[in-house]
Amino acid sequence: MEKILIFGHKNPDTDTITSSLVLANLETKLGKNVEACAQGKPNKETEFVLNYLGIEAPRVIEDVEDGQEVMLVDHASFEESVPNLENAKILRVVDHHKLGLTTSYPLNYRAEAVGCTETVLYKMYKEYGVEVDKKIATLMLSAIISDTLLLKSPTCTEEDVKAVKELAKIAEVDYEKYGLEMLKAGTDLSSFSIEEILNLDAKQTSLKDVKTIINQVNTASIPEVMEMKADLEAGMNKIIEEKELDLFMLLITDIVNSNSQVIALGKDAKLVEKAYGVKLEDNTALLKGVVSRKKQVIPIMTENA
Amino acid sequence: MEKILIFGHKNPDTDTITSSLVLANLETKLGKNVEACAQGKPNKETEFVLNYLGIEAPRVIEDVEDGQEVMLVDHASFEESVPNLENAKILRVVDHHKLGLTTSYPLNYRAEAVGCTETVLYKMYKEYGVEVDKKIATLMLSAIISDTLLLKSPTCTEEDVKAVKELAKIAEVDYEKYGLEMLKAGTDLSSFSIEEILNLDAKQTSLKDVKTIINQVNTASIPEVMEMKADLEAGMNKIIEEKELDLFMLLITDIVNSNSQVIALGKDAKLVEKAYGVKLEDNTALLKGVVSRKKQVIPIMTENA
Repeated sequence: MEKILIFGHKNPDTDTITSSLVLANLETKLGKNVEACAQGKPNKETEFVLNYLGIEAPRVIEDVEDGQEVMLVDHASFEESVPNLENAKILRVVDHHKLGLTTSYPLNYRAEAVGCTETVLYKMYKEYGVEVDKKIATLMLSAIISDTLLLKSPTCTEEDVKAVKELAKIAEVDYEKYGLEMLKAGTDLSSFSIEEILNLDAKQTSLKDVKTIINQVNTASIPEVMEMKADLEAGMNKIIEEKELDLFMLLITDIVNSNSQVIALGKDAKLVEKAYGVKLEDNTALLKGVVSRKKQVIPIMTENA
Repeated sequence: MEKILIFGHKNPDTDTITSSLVLANLETKLGKNVEACAQGKPNKETEFVLNYLGIEAPRVIEDVEDGQEVMLVDHASFEESVPNLENAKILRVVDHHKLGLTTSYPLNYRAEAVGCTETVLYKMYKEYGVEVDKKIATLMLSAIISDTLLLKSPTCTEEDVKAVKELAKIAEVDYEKYGLEMLKAGTDLSSFSIEEILNLDAKQTSLKDVKTIINQVNTASIPEVMEMKADLEAGMNKIIEEKELDLFMLLITDIVNSNSQVIALGKDAKLVEKAYGVKLEDNTALLKGVVSRKKQVIPIMTENA
């Protein structure tokens, strides 16, 4: 029998990679022939987790064949998934995003409005009565900490907090200490060029009529990133010109103290001042308590655009 | 706080009505302010269940207002749901059909490829640790028996069988005896005209190029329905002419013995002979073991069209 492939979204993050490993373990215990895969290599944060546990990264796949049986984790849309998904057979989805796909057949679908896919998977282990061992607990814990920035993001729910506390006991780790190390591993920018940094997690969007890119970079030390400010601004101005943008916001997010330093360039940079009641000095300002682009930047900037 | 409305699909059947009552009970126990509703009155089978338990039918709603919070059971598509659903806020879906809707926000979604929504709801009660009392067990049991024709339909899974056996103990009923009575109550055609009978559960479809209506009527006695054969055929021929059909199949399904008597009219009636290896005599034949239009009629007829 052909293996069922399990995978998460494009540009894989820690939740997508660990969820494919964790669902693969569950399905194997339930007697299914499955393989955890990914649409790309792990990022530095995820590498930290896999190294910590001595686990290999999932095989990278480029697409799926017609009729291939698959299970999706951490996404539910054709855009975020592999090419040719519409001709595959989706057996299961485990997710925490919006509903973004339709099918012509029934399937197992479980999504919840929580901070992380692993919080849903943890419940599924309980429901099926499958043991969460130390390795699996560490994978789950890592993803929840990653998606909720150590339970501090506004996307974090009570269920995520509860899961982390229970999982930390099984994993036998101090989740705050371990989590901070893991998040810091993800902030290592040393191997990236300025162009790469400006593309790491850039999302192009329109705030009403304002053509905008909002890019977010995590760090444990804002001053360290700000040492590159002149080079970053030069790179941002180049992209503004090329893409005819009205606004480029670079959020440098302090994962320890949960603030973001913003660098704002473009003819509509002043919108940041209006939206947050701050004064841009030398194109930059500190946005206190702002860590979530989805919940704390896009809606407020749209309102003020 | 405005009540959250819970409802199932158009032309409500026993699963849709009981699932809205059963989810409403669960959500109430979980502290939510909800109301079970329906997109129409109960059919005769569902009436039997509600009378047996002394429960009133859910309030009928015609549409929903902008921003209304809702939960959907037993369907997941805009076509099968209330008008204006796209402007409501869907908080939860519990279902066993294909994925037929998308949203711009995350929500709680639980669907499984089983025979009945109540089988999924039964698992949810277990997961949340909410007691399934005698009334709730009877509602769940009734819907599973209805959707699986007393566990005999090919849509029935092991999980449905397991649920019925556990629920019968809680409900303290002989599920085979009770189930047959309930199914029989749904076969009472005495109050319907010929036109109404021919529209009760009619689905228009195309078997490749063959323009077809397949209508299904449940009965405990095929001969009793066949007494109306001449009138039924006259009505069918009228509809064939009006809608320019190539084929009209009326399946008279014996819910006790799990067979269907088919009456086939139209220029492509012979397709039935080819598909099932039977001989139509006087436009009719017995299709042994055939009870599911979805699994045992549409695919085979399409193959032979």
